[in-house]
Amino acid sequence: MHSPAPTLDPALDQRAVNTIRFLAVDAVEQAKSGHPGMPMGMADVAYVLWTKFLRYQPADPAWPNRDRFVLSAGHGSMLLYAMLHLAGYALPLEELKRFRKLHSLTPGHPEAGHTVGVETTTGPLGQGFGNAVGMAIASRMMSARFATPGFDPATWRVFGICGDGDLMEGVSSEAASLAGHWGLGNLVIVYDDNHISIEGDTQLAFTEDVGQRFEAYGWHVERANAQDRADVERALHAAVGATDRPSLVIARSTIAYGAPSKAGTAAAHGEPLGPEEVEGAKRALGWPLAPPFLVPDDVRARFTTRAAELRPDYDAWHAAMQAMRASDPARASQWEALVERRIPPDTFEQLVAQAPRTAAATRAHGNAVLQHAAALVPALVGGSADLEPSTKTAIKGSPAIQRGAFAGRNFHFGVREHGMGSILNGLSGAGFLPYGASFLVFTDYARPAIRLSALMRRQVVWVFTHDSVFLGEDGPTHEPIEHLASLRAIPNLLVERPADGIETAAAWGLALENRDGPTLIALSRQTLPALERDSDFDPSVLRRGGYVLREVRDAALTLIATGSEVGPAIEAATLLDAMGRTARVVSMPAPQLFLAQDAAYRDRVLPPGGRRVSIEAGSTYGWERIVGERGLAIGIDRYGESAPLAALQEYFGFTPARIAGRVTEWLAG
Amino acid sequence: MHSPAPTLDPALDQRAVNTIRFLAVDAVEQAKSGHPGMPMGMADVAYVLWTKFLRYQPADPAWPNRDRFVLSAGHGSMLLYAMLHLAGYALPLEELKRFRKLHSLTPGHPEAGHTVGVETTTGPLGQGFGNAVGMAIASRMMSARFATPGFDPATWRVFGICGDGDLMEGVSSEAASLAGHWGLGNLVIVYDDNHISIEGDTQLAFTEDVGQRFEAYGWHVERANAQDRADVERALHAAVGATDRPSLVIARSTIAYGAPSKAGTAAAHGEPLGPEEVEGAKRALGWPLAPPFLVPDDVRARFTTRAAELRPDYDAWHAAMQAMRASDPARASQWEALVERRIPPDTFEQLVAQAPRTAAATRAHGNAVLQHAAALVPALVGGSADLEPSTKTAIKGSPAIQRGAFAGRNFHFGVREHGMGSILNGLSGAGFLPYGASFLVFTDYARPAIRLSALMRRQVVWVFTHDSVFLGEDGPTHEPIEHLASLRAIPNLLVERPADGIETAAAWGLALENRDGPTLIALSRQTLPALERDSDFDPSVLRRGGYVLREVRDAALTLIATGSEVGPAIEAATLLDAMGRTARVVSMPAPQLFLAQDAAYRDRVLPPGGRRVSIEAGSTYGWERIVGERGLAIGIDRYGESAPLAALQEYFGFTPARIAGRVTEWLAG
Repeated sequence: MHSPAPTLDPALDQRAVNTIRFLAVDAVEQAKSGHPGMPMGMADVAYVLWTKFLRYQPADPAWPNRDRFVLSAGHGSMLLYAMLHLAGYALPLEELKRFRKLHSLTPGHPEAGHTVGVETTTGPLGQGFGNAVGMAIASRMMSARFATPGFDPATWRVFGICGDGDLMEGVSSEAASLAGHWGLGNLVIVYDDNHISIEGDTQLAFTEDVGQRFEAYGWHVERANAQDRADVERALHAAVGATDRPSLVIARSTIAYGAPSKAGTAAAHGEPLGPEEVEGAKRALGWPLAPPFLVPDDVRARFTTRAAELRPDYDAWHAAMQAMRASDPARASQWEALVERRIPPDTFEQLVAQAPRTAAATRAHGNAVLQHAAALVPALVGGSADLEPSTKTAIKGSPAIQRGAFAGRNFHFGVREHGMGSILNGLSGAGFLPYGASFLVFTDYARPAIRLSALMRRQVVWVFTHDSVFLGEDGPTHEPIEHLASLRAIPNLLVERPADGIETAAAWGLALENRDGPTLIALSRQTLPALERDSDFDPSVLRRGGYVLREVRDAALTLIATGSEVGPAIEAATLLDAMGRTARVVSMPAPQLFLAQDAAYRDRVLPPGGRRVSIEAGSTYGWERIVGERGLAIGIDRYGESAPLAALQEYFGFTPARIAGRVTEWLAG
Repeated sequence: MHSPAPTLDPALDQRAVNTIRFLAVDAVEQAKSGHPGMPMGMADVAYVLWTKFLRYQPADPAWPNRDRFVLSAGHGSMLLYAMLHLAGYALPLEELKRFRKLHSLTPGHPEAGHTVGVETTTGPLGQGFGNAVGMAIASRMMSARFATPGFDPATWRVFGICGDGDLMEGVSSEAASLAGHWGLGNLVIVYDDNHISIEGDTQLAFTEDVGQRFEAYGWHVERANAQDRADVERALHAAVGATDRPSLVIARSTIAYGAPSKAGTAAAHGEPLGPEEVEGAKRALGWPLAPPFLVPDDVRARFTTRAAELRPDYDAWHAAMQAMRASDPARASQWEALVERRIPPDTFEQLVAQAPRTAAATRAHGNAVLQHAAALVPALVGGSADLEPSTKTAIKGSPAIQRGAFAGRNFHFGVREHGMGSILNGLSGAGFLPYGASFLVFTDYARPAIRLSALMRRQVVWVFTHDSVFLGEDGPTHEPIEHLASLRAIPNLLVERPADGIETAAAWGLALENRDGPTLIALSRQTLPALERDSDFDPSVLRRGGYVLREVRDAALTLIATGSEVGPAIEAATLLDAMGRTARVVSMPAPQLFLAQDAAYRDRVLPPGGRRVSIEAGSTYGWERIVGERGLAIGIDRYGESAPLAALQEYFGFTPARIAGRVTEWLAG
């Protein structure tokens, strides 16, 4: 049993907690929008966490070995903003007063990259939980790579606060199962067990035994009274001490603690308390009614003291790192390369030069390219949602990442696309350049995590194989149709569908260069031909999203294809030539990237006034932007079928003869 | 402790099980593709289930009170096809020989509506599990509505088989928590615990205590040896006997049981065994090497006997139903209306006639329309993923559906969009016309279930509110951008984004009429004006996906808007008029539906040669199909911002003045 260290001034602690509470209340009131109840209920927990456990340095928010704090229940954003402000981060009180205003540093939900100290963007429930698992395993993996007997530069822990909603969402179940499997003893999640969800008491829909469930995942479970700081400290101490497995601290709390009539009710969840209730809460907790946004000097000083207390640990880390730079400069430089996600400047060119030039499935090319990429970029780690034999995404010669064995680069995520995605997003902010793989149709399962990687501009590589109906026998449940279209519509997500080994290498090269966002690479199950290119082919056009693969002087007709349809398009062009309809062929692995090129280049590839046909074995939705309203979009706007490849190519009209026939008919029509 | 009833002929049972096993093996071998291991390991379980527990009548596969069998592990489809064939369903042996061939009745994964006896389409893991929960609660809900002291017409139970993958996916966690919460004692899931996933031993990624987890959800948990039929029967008997809560039977099995070298290995999961291994397995299990697809006569007779054994129960049900028709025709006719999902023929017209005509948020209109719809269609039931106060989707005057209280129409799904979706899909095939609600951005969480509703052509109404950045302060994590585009690309999904009360009523009317597929209705958070319409307005144009709201003779310019942008478009047209640029305005709540109209209508709404502008507060992706390459698509192709509504309207350029300015600039350009 842990005996809490005696606090010098319990009254100061209470003032500090009330400061947190009422910064949140006043900000929500001023914004006329927000979630006051959660910060009021969890202020004690946050205070204990930040003043007794969390290791941070506000002057250096990017310190690689800082403990991470994740507010998975992102709607309680004012709790985080209040803590960051008090802790001394670059978040002035004026910004708290601009809560939820356009371009303030205090948006409705915490946004990483926007507000200093916010580790990850949360709000979509369960995601922060999974991100926290990713950050925690990143710590173990960095430690496995860099720790020496004298110094472990990666000892960071991850603390999170989540709510009922986070634990109802399946993504947290997936991530929790993996965290337990991996034995992540550096992960502590506090569950704000306030018995209130938006529709009312959690008894309406959430009566499972959460503690027992987490024990089943292999977690250490503690219980505490969220309004009793000594009890919270005891539970957190026990949680931190359980280093062989992650911990869940079930903190029984009162939502809107202190509010005279709304405490413990759903009314306090997602809207301002109202002036009367605010006044009542301030009176009940002995807080001055005015001014709003009050921060007593001694409370501010308490946090200044805390930063100073934490400083020696921070300085010691830097001294040890400095010593490593002197004694083992190679290791120190590897560390820096990882932390900064540095890649060799000619990565793209090296990958393209080494590109496989045989006929093969692009998933097989992807495997070959991945080996080259992994050799160039030590930060690259990843895995598959239990489909590696099909996605071919293992890094050869590197062991699996498992409990107590974190030096490898290959994850086994199990059949958990969504958990995988949320973990990748956590890894991407903590030293690694992660990739994750499954079948393209299962992007649907991971979609909220894919979107967050794009919203946060996180460098994650999403590798999805079996990218069309031409996967064959598995049938419509496994055959993507609308997926390429629906992914291309996601802002900041670069979608690549390469056609052969060289394009696959280029896709990976672009993904590794694309520091400010995720890249999704769609690869074929079936064998594709190695495309012929002129001897003077300039690989830099592969950076442009689309380029002319078959030029025919004065031809008015251009066939535009992606991935597995490029080969048939070229054959179709040959057939059309023979019919007196000469056709150019453009390979367009990334239409969105092509559309971002300068007009001169676009006009060179797609001459204005020419007639255009797009060919892609998926939804035609969105192809009008490329082919124009006079153009023809050959695609598949219905669900697939279960059948062998050749039967499907014929049935859906994607043989060269069927394509040529369709084009001829259209030209004549 | 249950003592299994002595079997007349254990050797016959063994032959029957081997028949199942080798039908699967031979079919996979002939297809050169498929999953032999699961059927080989689970043949005993399936045999015991179908011959001792499952109540079915092959001659009447649509019998409303049949027990449902759900193969959640859909890749083991040959197990289901073998059972359906042997049980006497219209699935001849020739079709088993055409496994995974184009247009056979035996596609790679089971497809509901395609193969008789397949209750739901499975393959995407975890979905079948959730569907089974929906079917089980449907039984309880039908019973609550129709049972009398003498006769309960809805006593069906739901049996399922799932694998490791199903239980790793978060969607099954969500559905399992709800099934435990609801106490669904008529649900029995057998977990094929074969310790093998595609990447290898489940020890790689799945070491949680599944039994303990399900106990935490409130389930009854049994364990059995899947290769010991008596033990399986004992466990199933205990599971069926636990009528106060759902049961999980953890059946420890050997994948590819009988295969000499591949049994118990990942090699047997997803590819043919190969001739040598098939021969070895047949020898090991004492099965004739030839012919393939062998069904001994006595095995076939065993199933004929079983159907006969089940007949009296079936006949008694029909007799009782006949008696109900005589004694209580109103009740009987209500039953039939539900089972057949009948709606009044003038539902659309009634809803439009009663439509709210005030200025309000379309989510508020949706609430009013829902009350009318619920009065017209008793089959309509639904709920929200813990957002009802925001989505406004409760049916007034009807209680919540809870454990032991299944007569109501309102679900509390908790924060579980994905579990909700999979449960709706199960409900839709079992007597109800379900709807589910959340915020539009969270369609991402439910997307695999939305897609399956469309693939299965299930009548599900998806209601998603907060349908643009104009939800305001919650910021980019909650603001949909790419969602409308990505949903419109899904085949068979009707997407409606109404602009006022009348369009909201029409959207619901179309959804209720749309028997052969799901409808998604996107509704605004913010107040929208009541649109003015001519006194001779013909509501039937609301069926056409798009119509002229503001006609101006000879105007060459047409503004096309959806939902919350229709009001500003009309105001912008007034401003443009004043600037000498007369503009027509088209409201287009459902672009995909509009594109499916005849050319004459389309040309009347969008005269060829005219200039067109689309206005929608979301991705412009796909709007070229409507506006053409000379057109202008006004939208938002980046992430949103956290700010009050008015600030966002100005910032993103959606005030009437900003729209008019943008159009003028474009016309001049």
